[in-house]
Amino acid sequence: MTVRLGVIGGDGIGPEVVAEARKVLDVVLPDVTATEYDLGAARYHRTGEVLPDEVLEQLAGEDVLLLGAVGDPSVPSGVLERGLLLKLRFAFDHYVNLRPSRLWAGTTSPLAGVAPGDIDLVVVREGTEGLYCGAGGTVRKGTPAEVATEESLNTRYGAERAVRDAFERAMRRPRRKVTLVHKNNVLVNAGDLWARTFAEVATEYPDVQTEYQHVDAAAMFLVTDPQRYDVIVTDNLFGDILTDLAAAVTGGIGLAASGNINPTRAYPSMFEPVHGSAPDIAGQGVADPAAAILSTALLLDHLGRPEEARRVEEAVGAEVAKRVPGEKLRTAEVGDAVAAALAG
Amino acid sequence: MTVRLGVIGGDGIGPEVVAEARKVLDVVLPDVTATEYDLGAARYHRTGEVLPDEVLEQLAGEDVLLLGAVGDPSVPSGVLERGLLLKLRFAFDHYVNLRPSRLWAGTTSPLAGVAPGDIDLVVVREGTEGLYCGAGGTVRKGTPAEVATEESLNTRYGAERAVRDAFERAMRRPRRKVTLVHKNNVLVNAGDLWARTFAEVATEYPDVQTEYQHVDAAAMFLVTDPQRYDVIVTDNLFGDILTDLAAAVTGGIGLAASGNINPTRAYPSMFEPVHGSAPDIAGQGVADPAAAILSTALLLDHLGRPEEARRVEEAVGAEVAKRVPGEKLRTAEVGDAVAAALAG
Ligand SMILES: CC(C)[C@H](C(=O)O)[C@@H](O)C(=O)O
Ligand SMILES: CC(C)[C@H](C(=O)O)[C@@H](O)C(=O)O
Repeated sequence: MTVRLGVIGGDGIGPEVVAEARKVLDVVLPDVTATEYDLGAARYHRTGEVLPDEVLEQLAGEDVLLLGAVGDPSVPSGVLERGLLLKLRFAFDHYVNLRPSRLWAGTTSPLAGVAPGDIDLVVVREGTEGLYCGAGGTVRKGTPAEVATEESLNTRYGAERAVRDAFERAMRRPRRKVTLVHKNNVLVNAGDLWARTFAEVATEYPDVQTEYQHVDAAAMFLVTDPQRYDVIVTDNLFGDILTDLAAAVTGGIGLAASGNINPTRAYPSMFEPVHGSAPDIAGQGVADPAAAILSTALLLDHLGRPEEARRVEEAVGAEVAKRVPGEKLRTAEVGDAVAAALAG
Repeated sequence: MTVRLGVIGGDGIGPEVVAEARKVLDVVLPDVTATEYDLGAARYHRTGEVLPDEVLEQLAGEDVLLLGAVGDPSVPSGVLERGLLLKLRFAFDHYVNLRPSRLWAGTTSPLAGVAPGDIDLVVVREGTEGLYCGAGGTVRKGTPAEVATEESLNTRYGAERAVRDAFERAMRRPRRKVTLVHKNNVLVNAGDLWARTFAEVATEYPDVQTEYQHVDAAAMFLVTDPQRYDVIVTDNLFGDILTDLAAAVTGGIGLAASGNINPTRAYPSMFEPVHGSAPDIAGQGVADPAAAILSTALLLDHLGRPEEARRVEEAVGAEVAKRVPGEKLRTAEVGDAVAAALAG
């Protein structure tokens, strides 16, 4: 069965790291029809377009999408974020924003006293609700009487499918623990909805251990005791903050992969490294493609190929473990090494 | 001039740490009329009351308030938080929620490679707006069609007074730098209001260096490069998360002081340690009163006594620096030592 892969290299180092990810995919998933999409800052500057409707339609026909990174300081903040990245999440109902954090051998945590292997968690961040809906407004803009609102929209439907996904993932992991993170002592409406939904879904998974934490406490524990986490499920904005924090304690976003997933496969899911387009190092062949390659592992898992996913993760892990601190990394060499290990 | 001090010892270790804070205040601020208020979990269980109107009125007549900690697992989540703590912040218009984080000599950061003195930041967290207003609702509660909303209310008036306070504080600090943290690529209404307000106020403080960061990036930098921060100004919820994170990287909430401040003095400001009532160690005389004592330094500063504030901070710093790792701490001994150092 040929997999239709939509590829959005994007800007800066995006195309460079995606090229390496594709080398790896070519080995483990050879039967692919890839289509490149020209989206990002470059297209925006050339044509003024961010995501034309016909491109969105074409993307909808792909099975899965791989994105490098989009963005450039020359584009006003928010244009590509909302017009492209968030638009795709909402258009393709990516309700699971999946972000694993693992402390790989060969990497160093900024935390004292944690060793590779100690941290292995995954955040199921709800991706289609909360404060990301774009609900809100401004009156009397620019005057001393200005009022601006942001509205967080939350549904049982939305919370339940994210929570259920988190429990399903926990069942496939050895520790089988799910932590709900919210702020239900202040956000009483949304927090109560999440907490009730969590408690009800939990009854269907008696083998899964559960806990609840306020988001401020979770931020603290990610620094003082990240080992405690297995699966974290949380809302869109809390997930945004906690996943960057989890990436930081596991050595930075250089190795952070992510998936914007619609587990029903009604729409294509999109996989991407968490890092940005890094214009400062673009074109030099020195960007680390590990996060992009690890994103293909999430892609493979989503396509029902957990064995291939695991092999890619292990190959990346082995490559990272061999790195010599201080030695310059070459983007293409990393991709070649991982692809060769998988082919060999 | 006699200072009217309202004292809310609260629950658990609250009264224990407040007793030590008062020993210290007795030395540096002898002309005090103190009134004790019985509020917290104990009163709630005895009478069902959280904060009766007449008590709120009486509190309004104080110059400043000192709070230990309130709460107990036996009280449903949110009752004391919203009925007492948040109620006071809103009733007394505590628009500056001030939270300094310093890595004191004698304490250990969970971060590798940061030494005492490296981290010295203060967060000006807006305290009266944002998602803390209690605006939101639920329909079809408990059904599959449930919808829950939370609304963030933000005003130019509210953002500006917080931002201005941050710049004023930066002017009194050696590094003179203010970082605005928000998420203006997603929360376009509130984020834009904050960013414009920040930019405009900044023009009045040409000596202050400024920067902007998204909240997810700030969470990361607090772990990878906390040294970069001097004054952070941010909204209510982001401030909640980032201050716990800042406390964590500076050795935990054991030393974290805070002030809920109305800089105009139209209402009494309230000072409190960030830690909770810690029922597990209550009554044993082993709670660390350092955060409560450091909160009195913020209280003194608010009362226009920066010299006394500095002396209290230094005395606490000296006491903490002398601690022998592993040696049991006695609450009363810490208070006695700090008070003696200040008296001597
Ligand atoms: C770019 C931005 C809109 C996005 C988000 O907030 O979700 C990013 O921070 C992320 O985490 O993918
Ligand atoms: C108890 C709770 C309402 C409070 C808050 O969210 O502000 C606490 O976390 C704090 O930071 O003071």
